[in-house]
Amino acid sequence: MIRWRLDIAYDGTDFSGWARQADRRTVQGDLELWIPRVLRLDSPITLTVAGRTDAGVHARGQVAHVDLPDETDASDLPRRLRRVLAEDLVVACASRAPLGFDARFSAIWRRYVYRLWDAVSQPDPLLRHQVVRVPDRLDLDVVNRSAEHLLGLRDFAPFCRPRAGATTVRTLLGLAAARVGPRGPIELEVRADAFCHSMVRSLAGAMVAVGSGRRDEVWLASVMTSRTRHSALTVMPPHGLTLEEVGYPPDEDLATRADQARSVRSLPAEQPLREPGPASVAKALPPRDEDQT
Amino acid sequence: MIRWRLDIAYDGTDFSGWARQADRRTVQGDLELWIPRVLRLDSPITLTVAGRTDAGVHARGQVAHVDLPDETDASDLPRRLRRVLAEDLVVACASRAPLGFDARFSAIWRRYVYRLWDAVSQPDPLLRHQVVRVPDRLDLDVVNRSAEHLLGLRDFAPFCRPRAGATTVRTLLGLAAARVGPRGPIELEVRADAFCHSMVRSLAGAMVAVGSGRRDEVWLASVMTSRTRHSALTVMPPHGLTLEEVGYPPDEDLATRADQARSVRSLPAEQPLREPGPASVAKALPPRDEDQT
Repeated sequence: MIRWRLDIAYDGTDFSGWARQADRRTVQGDLELWIPRVLRLDSPITLTVAGRTDAGVHARGQVAHVDLPDETDASDLPRRLRRVLAEDLVVACASRAPLGFDARFSAIWRRYVYRLWDAVSQPDPLLRHQVVRVPDRLDLDVVNRSAEHLLGLRDFAPFCRPRAGATTVRTLLGLAAARVGPRGPIELEVRADAFCHSMVRSLAGAMVAVGSGRRDEVWLASVMTSRTRHSALTVMPPHGLTLEEVGYPPDEDLATRADQARSVRSLPAEQPLREPGPASVAKALPPRDEDQT
Repeated sequence: MIRWRLDIAYDGTDFSGWARQADRRTVQGDLELWIPRVLRLDSPITLTVAGRTDAGVHARGQVAHVDLPDETDASDLPRRLRRVLAEDLVVACASRAPLGFDARFSAIWRRYVYRLWDAVSQPDPLLRHQVVRVPDRLDLDVVNRSAEHLLGLRDFAPFCRPRAGATTVRTLLGLAAARVGPRGPIELEVRADAFCHSMVRSLAGAMVAVGSGRRDEVWLASVMTSRTRHSALTVMPPHGLTLEEVGYPPDEDLATRADQARSVRSLPAEQPLREPGPASVAKALPPRDEDQT
């Protein structure tokens, strides 16, 4: 088998998210239906994805991989899929993956943008499926000052929908808001090694709360100490969120990175992140939570 | 009565164009229904618009005016309409119009952008309702060189759907194509004093024909000599077109400009553009063709 990397973009509006579901239209479902057909494969395929986006979340820079029989040339896949896929789903590029590449586990970061119109913004009806309107004016200086306190390796449990046996420890690499033009939308850029479920949209909700003045930094600090999902946090609507880009290390580090990411993350106090444990223990642990927003 | 200027944006996808029609959803129809309601007016209103966009054409910088009773304060109109209008239609601003202002006749230019993905572009599914895909690669140097030959005051009959008694003489002030980013869409910017029906979309069709190499500049020159609509010209789909901006002169020139624009345009050889004719003759002539794309 040969591994192929697919670069994918979609308008999430009419999809029930990335992950295949019976009787629902999903991105994975559409691709796993059509790729074997246009390549005339005898067997079904399974895609592995960098970011399992929720229903309504968009993507411009989604990455997936698929293992195909040696004799299959998939480089023409974008053109072939264009003929059969609906216009809200585009495979932009299909390329042979470098050795050790895993779309999910080799990724070193995911970059999402949450788009907002606040009271200062001039809403553009042409972008309404990608931007969420909030009634207040957001003070971006306050947002960006508050955001700095959230950076780094920490337990994002207060921001995450819990999943049995899955860790909520992540490294938040970037969180910053900027207005596009004097009356344009606000782009809240969020970058982390990976995300747990609802994390980006809860972070966006927290930033809206402090930026509008409805909450302050003391409140945010108290939220951060919660060991479980914090009930006062608003999970912002999915359609403001777009997966913009997935980062991978240089080719020679792909396999090493994938091995690291397969192990469960934890905070240094509990278990050092890179401490090698016995293989049997590592296997008994559930895999680290998938990136899911 | 006091005249108000309205700045309007809409996603044209679900509208049968600007102009009011019985039993069809139109921008004018929605606004003329809701403005009297939210302002609690006793009488119906009539909007006058700068650019009568066709079904499916979008607008970010549409301008209209409406005359309202002296005692009516419409400055809060954007907020009130937001509560009742669907999200694909936004009145961004309502302001008291300066003396002599007429949204249609005071305008000195309209700027449209036609957006295309060619073979080099990376289509973005989130923008598919505003961008049209063409199969070829477009040579923008060829497009821009050809475009220069079309500038100026001339009869655009080859590019226009005919309308009885209406002139097709217009001044094309700008026509230029640029690619947004290395793999982005192509923006074809078209600016004229006004447009006749299907003119922008036919100009876009001509530019695609020469840019793709399917036609050459000799062909374009021959098209230009046609006295009637040229059958070989493709009218591009409406959803690629957006009315971006309408230009008005300084306030003190508004009334003069409106008087000029109400008279019928013609080429210098037939009738000098600014020659003052007897008022009776001017009234007998049909008004100059409305801007309609």
